[in-house]
Amino acid sequence: MRAFRYSSSGAFENVLLSDEPDSAPQRGEVEVRVNSVSLNYRDIAIARGDYIHPVTSGLIPCSDASGVVISVGADVHTLRVGDRVISTFHPTWFGGRERNLAPSSSYGNGVDGWLTERRIASQEALVKLPEGMSSEDASTLPCAAATAWNALNGDNALRAGDTVLTLGTGGVSLFAVQLARAMGVRVIATTSTDEKARFLKSLGADEVVCYRETPAWGARVKALTGGRGVDRVVEVGGAGTIAESLDAVARGGEVVLIGFLGGVAADIDFLRLKKSEATIRSISVGDRANLETLVRAIHVTGLRPVIDRVFNFEQAQAAFGYLSAGQHKGKIVIRLDERDTV
Amino acid sequence: MRAFRYSSSGAFENVLLSDEPDSAPQRGEVEVRVNSVSLNYRDIAIARGDYIHPVTSGLIPCSDASGVVISVGADVHTLRVGDRVISTFHPTWFGGRERNLAPSSSYGNGVDGWLTERRIASQEALVKLPEGMSSEDASTLPCAAATAWNALNGDNALRAGDTVLTLGTGGVSLFAVQLARAMGVRVIATTSTDEKARFLKSLGADEVVCYRETPAWGARVKALTGGRGVDRVVEVGGAGTIAESLDAVARGGEVVLIGFLGGVAADIDFLRLKKSEATIRSISVGDRANLETLVRAIHVTGLRPVIDRVFNFEQAQAAFGYLSAGQHKGKIVIRLDERDTV
Amino acid sequence: MRAFRYSSSGAFENVLLSDEPDSAPQRGEVEVRVNSVSLNYRDIAIARGDYIHPVTSGLIPCSDASGVVISVGADVHTLRVGDRVISTFHPTWFGGRERNLAPSSSYGNGVDGWLTERRIASQEALVKLPEGMSSEDASTLPCAAATAWNALNGDNALRAGDTVLTLGTGGVSLFAVQLARAMGVRVIATTSTDEKARFLKSLGADEVVCYRETPAWGARVKALTGGRGVDRVVEVGGAGTIAESLDAVARGGEVVLIGFLGGVAADIDFLRLKKSEATIRSISVGDRANLETLVRAIHVTGLRPVIDRVFNFEQAQAAFGYLSAGQHKGKIVIRLDERDTV
Amino acid sequence: MRAFRYSSSGAFENVLLSDEPDSAPQRGEVEVRVNSVSLNYRDIAIARGDYIHPVTSGLIPCSDASGVVISVGADVHTLRVGDRVISTFHPTWFGGRERNLAPSSSYGNGVDGWLTERRIASQEALVKLPEGMSSEDASTLPCAAATAWNALNGDNALRAGDTVLTLGTGGVSLFAVQLARAMGVRVIATTSTDEKARFLKSLGADEVVCYRETPAWGARVKALTGGRGVDRVVEVGGAGTIAESLDAVARGGEVVLIGFLGGVAADIDFLRLKKSEATIRSISVGDRANLETLVRAIHVTGLRPVIDRVFNFEQAQAAFGYLSAGQHKGKIVIRLDERDTV
Repeated sequence: MRAFRYSSSGAFENVLLSDEPDSAPQRGEVEVRVNSVSLNYRDIAIARGDYIHPVTSGLIPCSDASGVVISVGADVHTLRVGDRVISTFHPTWFGGRERNLAPSSSYGNGVDGWLTERRIASQEALVKLPEGMSSEDASTLPCAAATAWNALNGDNALRAGDTVLTLGTGGVSLFAVQLARAMGVRVIATTSTDEKARFLKSLGADEVVCYRETPAWGARVKALTGGRGVDRVVEVGGAGTIAESLDAVARGGEVVLIGFLGGVAADIDFLRLKKSEATIRSISVGDRANLETLVRAIHVTGLRPVIDRVFNFEQAQAAFGYLSAGQHKGKIVIRLDERDTV
Repeated sequence: MRAFRYSSSGAFENVLLSDEPDSAPQRGEVEVRVNSVSLNYRDIAIARGDYIHPVTSGLIPCSDASGVVISVGADVHTLRVGDRVISTFHPTWFGGRERNLAPSSSYGNGVDGWLTERRIASQEALVKLPEGMSSEDASTLPCAAATAWNALNGDNALRAGDTVLTLGTGGVSLFAVQLARAMGVRVIATTSTDEKARFLKSLGADEVVCYRETPAWGARVKALTGGRGVDRVVEVGGAGTIAESLDAVARGGEVVLIGFLGGVAADIDFLRLKKSEATIRSISVGDRANLETLVRAIHVTGLRPVIDRVFNFEQAQAAFGYLSAGQHKGKIVIRLDERDTV
Repeated sequence: MRAFRYSSSGAFENVLLSDEPDSAPQRGEVEVRVNSVSLNYRDIAIARGDYIHPVTSGLIPCSDASGVVISVGADVHTLRVGDRVISTFHPTWFGGRERNLAPSSSYGNGVDGWLTERRIASQEALVKLPEGMSSEDASTLPCAAATAWNALNGDNALRAGDTVLTLGTGGVSLFAVQLARAMGVRVIATTSTDEKARFLKSLGADEVVCYRETPAWGARVKALTGGRGVDRVVEVGGAGTIAESLDAVARGGEVVLIGFLGGVAADIDFLRLKKSEATIRSISVGDRANLETLVRAIHVTGLRPVIDRVFNFEQAQAAFGYLSAGQHKGKIVIRLDERDTV
Repeated sequence: MRAFRYSSSGAFENVLLSDEPDSAPQRGEVEVRVNSVSLNYRDIAIARGDYIHPVTSGLIPCSDASGVVISVGADVHTLRVGDRVISTFHPTWFGGRERNLAPSSSYGNGVDGWLTERRIASQEALVKLPEGMSSEDASTLPCAAATAWNALNGDNALRAGDTVLTLGTGGVSLFAVQLARAMGVRVIATTSTDEKARFLKSLGADEVVCYRETPAWGARVKALTGGRGVDRVVEVGGAGTIAESLDAVARGGEVVLIGFLGGVAADIDFLRLKKSEATIRSISVGDRANLETLVRAIHVTGLRPVIDRVFNFEQAQAAFGYLSAGQHKGKIVIRLDERDTV
C-alpha cells in the first residue's frame, strides 16, 4: 500500500510518496481503509521543522481522517467491518479530568499519521460516523471542529442566548461561528474585509466588526452586548488579540486560548485580566467524548463544514502548498478513495 | 385601582373584580403597571380548591405578568422608571444550590398575585426585558417556559446533538419543543392526533409518535434513537407516562418530573428504573437565574411563544373558563394595558 | 500457571482450580502478576446462577485485583515493568458522558476475571498505584470503594459541610462512611444493633439511627438535619428502604441507587418522589477516571479500607464460603503472592 | 447609637466614633445588633484613599460582621428575632451565573458598613448561623474565608485527593490551608521563615516550601506532586508570584486570582500560560450561596478560624493600627457586645 511520509525537515515539499508493508490488526484493533484526510496548519509546521512539540522524523503526516473498517482483530466489540469512522486527535485521551495528551501517540510527530491508504488503529481511537454524513465532511472534524466544539461546549458549556466572539476566518473560527449559531448562541465575529464580513454573516454571524477600521474592537464588541461583554471568546489570535479580547469579555466570562497563530511572544496585562473578572482557559483540541458529541451535533443540526477544495491522493503535495499559500477559506481535503463502503 | 381576587373556593367563576387601595414602594421595591398576565393551570386549581399546596383565601390570582416600572423606592439600583419587566415565579429563589421555594411568597396561594392593574414588588423579584420582546409574549415566560428551560438547561444542561422527548401539547411541552429546536437538540414528541402531530412538526419536532397508535411508545422512541435512548424526557404526564418514559430514556439520561397532570397516583417500578440506568430529577419551575437566561435565549433565538388567545382585563373570568375548557393550544393571555411605556 | 474457574453453575463450591496456558501481551497490553483479589457479592451470584446479567459459563471469577506489571507489549507508554496496578471494573469505560458498560468486557460474566496468577490486560484497563498503598488494601477498591466514591463524587459531587445518609454495614456503605468523613461531609448511618452502631461511629459516622428501634427512620434522619434533609443517600437497600430514603432527603438532594441488595421487587411512590423534590440517580460502579481520583483520595487522606479477613490463593473456595455466610464486616481478600515487586 | 465613620481620607486614624440616629426595618428587612466585626485589608485601603474601586466619603467601614436579629419588618419569612447572623460581602449577589457585584451596595465604599452598634439589613443580605459557632469566629467568614472557599469550591470544586498550593500566611491563605485539609485535599504552602513553616504545618499543610531558599519554587512544588503539578493555586500574590504559580500548576489545573497584594503591575507570560495548559480564574469573594455552604462546612468540620487578637469597640482605631502594622497572623476582630442573644 501507499502512504506519504515526511522525508526530511525544512519544507512541505519533503512530504513524499512511499511504499509500505501491510499488517494485520492485533487484539482490540481494526484496519481502516482511508477515504479522506483533512489538513491542518500543524501538518505544515511539522514539515518545516518549526512545530512546538518534539518531532520524530520520517513519520506519516496528518491527524484527521475518515475511512471504513475493513478488518477487525480479536475482542473488538464496538466496531464491525463496514463501519465508517474518523480518527480522534488524541488517540488515548478518552474523557474525564486527566488530560492524557501523550506526545508519544500524537499523529505525525509522535507516531505515524493518516495520510495513508490503510492504517491499523485501536478501536478506542476511532469514532463511528452516523449515516448520511459524507466522508469528506467527516474528515474535517477531528482537529479544527473538535477544538471549536470544546471551546463552546467544554468544561463550561455555553447555552442558547449566550454570546460568543470569534476572530477571523481560520478553520476553528469558521466552525465556531457555525456551531454557535446552530446552538442558539449569538455570534459576534471580527475580520478584516467587507467580503469576509459578508462570508461570516452567510455562515451565521450576527454582527461583524472590522478590526482594521476599529482597532479598539474589544470595546466595540462589548458595546454590542449592551455593555455586559461576551460570554466566551474563541481566542485564536494569541499575542495580537488577547488584550482586546479581555476588553470584550463579560465578568465571569471565559477567554479560551486555542493556539499560537499570533506568532510572536506577548504578555497578558495582569491588571487588565484581573479587572475583567474573566477566566482564561487553555485547551488542546479535546478528548474522545468531545469528538463523539460533536459528531452527534453535526448530524442533528445538519451543519455542513466549509470545504475550500478537495485534492486527490496523488496531489497531496499540491494540497500542502495550497494550505501554505494561505488563500483558502475553510478546510482542505485530500481524497484517497471514492468508495465509502467495504 | 382594580384587581381580581379569589372570592371563595370551589369554581373559577369566583374570581371577581375588586377595588384596591394604592400604595408606594418601600426600600428596594418598585411599582409595576401590569401590561399582560398569562394563565397557568394552577390558577384554576387554586380557584377550585384542589391545589397541591396550602392556600390563603381571597388572594389576587396569577404568577405570570409583564409590565412597566412606574415608580421606584429608595436604594433601587437595578431598575429604573420605564424599564419593562416580568415577574419571577419564586420571588425569593435567586440561584445557587438551595431551593428557596417559601410558600409564603408564592403568588396566588401565599401572597397576592399579578392579576391587578398595579403591583409593588422587590427589585429582586423581577427580570428586565430586552428591547423588541412584546409584553404579551413576555408574560408567558415566568412559569411554563421557565419550567421547560430548566428541564433542558438546568443542573445538567443538554447540548446540541442531544435528543429530547416531549409529551403532548401542553404549555411546558410546546416551549420544550421550541427551545430544544433552537438549541440544536433533536426533538421526538408524542401526541394523540395527526392534526396535533402536524402542529408539533411545524414548531420543530423532528419525529412525532402517536401514543394511541403505539401504546408501547417508549420502545418506539428508543428505536428512533438507534437504540441508545433519549438524553432527556420532559415528563409532564406523571402517573400515566412514567413507565414508558423509562423505556425511552438512555443510560445516563434524565427524566425530569414536572407536575401532576397525570392526576391519579402511580408508582415507579423500581427495577425498571434501576435497569434504565437513568436519573429522575424533580423540578419546580426554577430560580431567577434560570428565568434571566431564558429571557436572553428567547431574545437571541427569536423564538415566538405560542399564544392561543388574548382576553381583555374585563374578560378575565372568560379567560379562566377558556383555560378550563381545555381546547386551547398554547398560552392564554389577559391584556390589561395597551401602553408599553411610562 | 494456575487460575480458578467457575466449573458449573448453582453453587460457589463449583469454583475450581485449573491449569492455564501462558500467553504474551499484544500491542498496548501488559502482563500482570496478581498479588491480591477482593471478593464482591456478584462473584457468588454468578456462581449460583442468579446474576442479573447474562453469564458465559466457565470463566475465571472476580473483578477486583491488584498486581505488578511483569512484561509489556509494543506501544505501551503509560506503564512499565515493576509498576503496581489495580483492575478497573468496566475495562472500556474511561470517562466522559457515554456509559460504556459493554457486558462483553465484564469480568467473570463476559470475559475471564482476575482470580488467576497472571493476566494480560490492556494498559487502558489498569490504574497505577501510588507508593505506600498496600496491595491488599488496593485490591478492595475497584468495585465497592469506586461505587461509594461515585455516589459521593460523581456528576454532582458533595462538598464539605454536606450531609450523607448511609445504610447498613455492607462494603459500599462502609467505604461511603469513611470517604465522606475524610472529605468533611457529615455522616448519618442506619444500622440494626448497638455493636454495629459503635463500629460505624468508630469509622467516622456522626450519628447512627437504629432502623429496628425507629421504623420511620426517614423522618428521624430528616429531623437530625434540622428539617432540611440529607444532601445524598447512598441507597443500597432498594425495595426495602427507598420510601424511607425519600423521607430523609432534602429538596434538591439526591438518592443514588446502587444495587439490588433489597432483593424483592418494589415500587417507588410517585407522589412521595415528586414531593421530595429530590433526584434519583442510578449508577453502575463508575468509569476509570472515577477510580483514578479515588486512588488519589485514598492515598492523600490515608484512609484504610476495612478488611475483615485475608485468605490464601489455595483457600479461595473457603473465601467464597465465608462471604456467602454473611458474617463479615468489611472486605474479604485472597492473597496470591507475597511479592509486591518484580 | 454609636458607629465609626471614615471622617476623611488619607490615614486609618481618620476612622472616628459618631452618634447615629436609630431607624426601623422596612418590608423585608431586619434590625441587627452587631456583636463582632472582623477587619480586612480593604478597610484600611479605603481609609488611606488607595482603594481600587470608587469610594463615597464618610461611610461606616467594614464588610464583615456577626450579630443578633432584634427586630423584623413586614414580610420577613426567613429570619426571626433572636436569630444569629453574619453579613454577606456582596449583599445583592445571591447565586447563579450573573455576578451582581453592584458597587453601589458595597460596604464601606458604596454604602455604610458594619462597624456600628446596630444596622438595618435586608433579610436576603444575611446568612443565619448554626448553633455552637461563636460570634467572634463567625465574624471572620464573610470576606477572607468566603474567598478561600470560593477558590477551592467554586465553579470547579476540588475533591478529596487533589492538591492545592497556597502562598504565604495572609487571611485567605490560612483559611485555604484549613479548609483544604478539612476536605481531604493535600496542601503545599509557600512561606518565608521556619517559624511560619511550622505554623502552616500545625494548621494542616502537608509540605511547606520556603520561597527565600528556593526562588524557583514553582518547579519545586511541581516536583513535590511527582511532576503532575497542583490542581489549584490560591494565587494571592499577583505580580510577584504568577510566573512561579504557572510552573507549579497541572495541565487542566486552575490558578485562582484573588487580589492585588503583589502591588506593582506585572504581566503574565502568554507562552508560559499556554504551555501550562492551565486555567486562570478571577474571583471576587463570592455570592451568598457560597457563604451559606461555607458556614455549613465550618460547622460540620469544626474548623476554628485563626484569630490573632480581639479589640473592644472603643479600641477600633487601635485595631486598624494593628492590622496596618502587618505583624498579625490570622484575623483581627472588634467585639461590640458580649451578649449573643436578644
